[in-house]
Amino acid sequence: MSTLGIAVIGAGRMGADHARRIGRTAGGARVVAVADPDAGRAKEVAAGLDGAYALTDPAAAVAAPGVGAVLIASPAAAHEEAVGYALERGLPVLCEKPLAPDAAGALRVVEAEQRLGRRLVQVGFMRRHDAEYGLLKELLDAGGIGRPLFLHCRHRNASSPPFFTADMLLGDSAVHEVDAARWLLGQEVTAVSVFAPAPSSLAPEGLGDPRFVLMETSGGALVDVEVFVNCGFGYEVRCEAVGESGSASLGEPQAVEVRRAGLRAQAVPQDFTVRFADAYDRQLRRWVAAAARGGVAGPDAWDGYAAAAVCEAAVASARSGVRTAVELVERPPLYR
Amino acid sequence: MSTLGIAVIGAGRMGADHARRIGRTAGGARVVAVADPDAGRAKEVAAGLDGAYALTDPAAAVAAPGVGAVLIASPAAAHEEAVGYALERGLPVLCEKPLAPDAAGALRVVEAEQRLGRRLVQVGFMRRHDAEYGLLKELLDAGGIGRPLFLHCRHRNASSPPFFTADMLLGDSAVHEVDAARWLLGQEVTAVSVFAPAPSSLAPEGLGDPRFVLMETSGGALVDVEVFVNCGFGYEVRCEAVGESGSASLGEPQAVEVRRAGLRAQAVPQDFTVRFADAYDRQLRRWVAAAARGGVAGPDAWDGYAAAAVCEAAVASARSGVRTAVELVERPPLYR
Amino acid sequence: MSTLGIAVIGAGRMGADHARRIGRTAGGARVVAVADPDAGRAKEVAAGLDGAYALTDPAAAVAAPGVGAVLIASPAAAHEEAVGYALERGLPVLCEKPLAPDAAGALRVVEAEQRLGRRLVQVGFMRRHDAEYGLLKELLDAGGIGRPLFLHCRHRNASSPPFFTADMLLGDSAVHEVDAARWLLGQEVTAVSVFAPAPSSLAPEGLGDPRFVLMETSGGALVDVEVFVNCGFGYEVRCEAVGESGSASLGEPQAVEVRRAGLRAQAVPQDFTVRFADAYDRQLRRWVAAAARGGVAGPDAWDGYAAAAVCEAAVASARSGVRTAVELVERPPLYR
Amino acid sequence: MSTLGIAVIGAGRMGADHARRIGRTAGGARVVAVADPDAGRAKEVAAGLDGAYALTDPAAAVAAPGVGAVLIASPAAAHEEAVGYALERGLPVLCEKPLAPDAAGALRVVEAEQRLGRRLVQVGFMRRHDAEYGLLKELLDAGGIGRPLFLHCRHRNASSPPFFTADMLLGDSAVHEVDAARWLLGQEVTAVSVFAPAPSSLAPEGLGDPRFVLMETSGGALVDVEVFVNCGFGYEVRCEAVGESGSASLGEPQAVEVRRAGLRAQAVPQDFTVRFADAYDRQLRRWVAAAARGGVAGPDAWDGYAAAAVCEAAVASARSGVRTAVELVERPPLYR
Repeated sequence: MSTLGIAVIGAGRMGADHARRIGRTAGGARVVAVADPDAGRAKEVAAGLDGAYALTDPAAAVAAPGVGAVLIASPAAAHEEAVGYALERGLPVLCEKPLAPDAAGALRVVEAEQRLGRRLVQVGFMRRHDAEYGLLKELLDAGGIGRPLFLHCRHRNASSPPFFTADMLLGDSAVHEVDAARWLLGQEVTAVSVFAPAPSSLAPEGLGDPRFVLMETSGGALVDVEVFVNCGFGYEVRCEAVGESGSASLGEPQAVEVRRAGLRAQAVPQDFTVRFADAYDRQLRRWVAAAARGGVAGPDAWDGYAAAAVCEAAVASARSGVRTAVELVERPPLYR
Repeated sequence: MSTLGIAVIGAGRMGADHARRIGRTAGGARVVAVADPDAGRAKEVAAGLDGAYALTDPAAAVAAPGVGAVLIASPAAAHEEAVGYALERGLPVLCEKPLAPDAAGALRVVEAEQRLGRRLVQVGFMRRHDAEYGLLKELLDAGGIGRPLFLHCRHRNASSPPFFTADMLLGDSAVHEVDAARWLLGQEVTAVSVFAPAPSSLAPEGLGDPRFVLMETSGGALVDVEVFVNCGFGYEVRCEAVGESGSASLGEPQAVEVRRAGLRAQAVPQDFTVRFADAYDRQLRRWVAAAARGGVAGPDAWDGYAAAAVCEAAVASARSGVRTAVELVERPPLYR
Repeated sequence: MSTLGIAVIGAGRMGADHARRIGRTAGGARVVAVADPDAGRAKEVAAGLDGAYALTDPAAAVAAPGVGAVLIASPAAAHEEAVGYALERGLPVLCEKPLAPDAAGALRVVEAEQRLGRRLVQVGFMRRHDAEYGLLKELLDAGGIGRPLFLHCRHRNASSPPFFTADMLLGDSAVHEVDAARWLLGQEVTAVSVFAPAPSSLAPEGLGDPRFVLMETSGGALVDVEVFVNCGFGYEVRCEAVGESGSASLGEPQAVEVRRAGLRAQAVPQDFTVRFADAYDRQLRRWVAAAARGGVAGPDAWDGYAAAAVCEAAVASARSGVRTAVELVERPPLYR
Repeated sequence: MSTLGIAVIGAGRMGADHARRIGRTAGGARVVAVADPDAGRAKEVAAGLDGAYALTDPAAAVAAPGVGAVLIASPAAAHEEAVGYALERGLPVLCEKPLAPDAAGALRVVEAEQRLGRRLVQVGFMRRHDAEYGLLKELLDAGGIGRPLFLHCRHRNASSPPFFTADMLLGDSAVHEVDAARWLLGQEVTAVSVFAPAPSSLAPEGLGDPRFVLMETSGGALVDVEVFVNCGFGYEVRCEAVGESGSASLGEPQAVEVRRAGLRAQAVPQDFTVRFADAYDRQLRRWVAAAARGGVAGPDAWDGYAAAAVCEAAVASARSGVRTAVELVERPPLYR
């Protein structure tokens, strides 16, 4: 087994985190090039990695000697182009979500793969690699609670970053539940209705935080999602699947229970990098193993496209106030 | 303190249960008359109670010597008439929910009380007397989690009785969440949208079980309710209130935790009489104390009317598939 | 069913609490006399109870007209005498624990009952009437976890009252675990070893708080008890039974779970009257029902004696630092 | 950063597991040699690792070209010799627990390191690398619950392997709690008392399963451990630390909660490799990073010696039935 050389595109928070993770937790891989328009940032990340080039041009990074796979963590608007460089060279890709800023862009990636006739692109929906989500998926697939009727989802952040917008609440946050629901149920989302309480006075003005998203699926299930990115108390992702003969819940992280001063309490993780640390590790290890064989190990370009289409419908529903159908192109044979 | 004599109207499951409970757990009260059209049933219940009359006529029971208060547990269609007999005599009433089969009937009770100028009727929404609901109410009133944004509610029964209908799913089951939401929030429900997944194949044909009810309130909160009366695994009522600065959940009953055969498990109560046994006791004790002073200690006729109006809107929404506004008459000064 | 008249001996905290409870939650009973050497205290308690006499002499209270049963909540040193008055008149007794300050005194009560040939005395070990303890007892009796090997017990109070002594840590606090263990296992305690960490600097000097009590039983089980009456954070009683094929735990009270400020937390009850409120109610109701028929419904004089003997051995072990055998007289046929 | 070459001594269950783990989760390291007296077993493990030698002689494996560190997972009796080969060459070692079969052997390793003047040996007490144990250690060190008074520990296996003996119950199982207690408290164990209930009829005859181990520490804390290696229901490690102002518990693994058939249940892990999978990964990563710098990152030879000495005292107490003091040599400056 030779070591897989990886080009990391984007040296911001996510890119730097992935790059560090490759060196630390993914045996059989190493970063050979880091590209970022901000040369200083690229250098800083590369400096921590023995012998990695720092570049400003993503195309050059993808083409660098020894690169056998590409990890894309640049801003969403730059994803499609970088994926293109990788596909040209037939290199496996792990692309942070969203695959593209809109469904049309994601669809172009799907079409490019179809022309190649191979699936090379994996999208970074890390929850599919979380241990609890994995157990829930197994239980559902085994019929352990019968046909699913509901998924009740909570997605809470302590606070939102300064640049966050009302559309990102759906396209950047709820998109995780869109992918999780499609995957857990093995169904497409067919319609979305977005509701909103009077917005929290503790959230930035105009953000419209929180939201309540109700999705209908091709198999007759209902998926409801509370998205609340300024909940104040921490980061929390929970999901309860309700089936015809039982229910199953995830989302209470393992934690030391402390009794003190009249309370029995556990700390709530403050950040997704804490809550999903293991999922990110596992995503990387699985992708490295699959990429070494030229394939993917998780959500593919079709999943990226479908999630983007559902989020577009959600944004439309949030604006119009009415239930909005999700229109997908026919699913190509490559993704069946 | 002399003992309060109570006439129990209706000797079915609920009536018999209340009658037994009065003797056992409510100091200061005793049943003096039991009325049921089924004379045998009335006799059977009265037989267990030292010196209680068994009658078939509710009016006669209310007028029996020594009766100082009336507990109504007959079928919903008979409530309004029985309440009328009590109001004529100025007697305090505890009426099982619903106050009347429809909002119009409940409104007539409200109007009758207004003519009397006194509130004598309490409706049997027992959750208001549950210890956990009481703590949640206190927390919300104290601003402990900030202004409420959501109530996420689950209402599950192991299985529905043979006579259960699609409308009862809303009017008999979800009505508890309607009252609880109005009380916890101190707000009226202004609109209802009812959604449904493909019905469970394990529920009776045509029942349309489960349902998902989404309510909007006068203060800008959203209340969602999963009503599932054939969930199979037990009786379960849960509620999570989400406010601007925190959340609070109830509904994990105290239970012995058993580790055995690969599982860490707790038994789920199978029945509301188990889950809310203490709430029924406390409701009765509080009502007896209040009735002895000529008043009520809990949800009143207005609450019964408002809940009925919301349920009517929910039934309409379930039929039409669209969001339905709740229209209430103006709240009379007696109930402010 | 006529109403049972009760004489309450002792109008301190426990007596006043029991007296109030009789009026409120125990149908079929009423307090007719309250006796306390402090006449003012007796009057105050009696005043809240319609038509009850206030007396200073316990013998007079027991002999008062209408008295059909006696509840003793005076200091331990006064129990034996008051029990004697009741036994002379053949009246059922509920006596707060301990039955007597020492095993010799408790044994004299056992002998007095033997002479009468009837069991009339119930000891107020209220845990036997707690719902969770009841479920654990059922599970053990049904062989649900196989033959019991261990009971791991925790008994914690937020802080101890000013008059508390090192011996009371065992005789007043751990005595509850002694009775619970004997009852749950259906076995006698045969030896006791008391260990102690360096005492808490937050507990009163000289109290030797906390202690660790290890009991061996006639059926080969080990029972360990942490007794810590100045734990600071609240009142907590937990018990895990470990059997050959599983384990079962009790002691996490039902509570609203609040997420706020980085924590997921539940309030810990601060007091035994909160934690065991239902158990006290149930104890009273069961005793009233049994007393009306002339009998007892719970731990009897033999249980009071055996618990006292174990506590004496524990005190001896705490002083000597060595394992101490428990010596009981032969169990009389009346108690088999 | 060049890659650290590792010799794995012992290709049984633990050795094979560590070898696989190095390739998969520890960036910066690779296995270059695998030694086992059973040549076939060594070959099988080496075959899964690109370019690793398979050998039968541990000395040859340690001396193989490219070896920069040694991982020892052979039977306990072979540890001391293999550690010797590594120390001769100045190579860092991760040695599975126990460091040696008895305290005398462990002490010889301590003495050998002293002669070298460097700490090169880390012992594989993986719990120190578990996230929950780490949080508990931080909390205790920060004074979060005040001075520790008790550690209540449970160590349960579903069933014991065929070769398990009564002494291994203490030296192989309880030894983990010995190390955890010493580490969490930062104190030495000064005396041990071993108690036993009547042994479980479901455990192998003569094993004397379960046991109850009570340790006293240099700082006045008490540590009690239930060791039960045939508990039937799964693998479970729990620990509650009780301090002067609070308590803290660990050991409820994150798990999907399933409601089904009258139960609310979570699966119990069946094996330590599941429960401590992350701890083993983290142990390896930390050791690789430390070994690359020539040091250790966790329990050292002194810890291995002290744990062995406590276990010897425990075995003696189990045989004699009396409290047994732990005698340690003076702690050398190298380990302060």
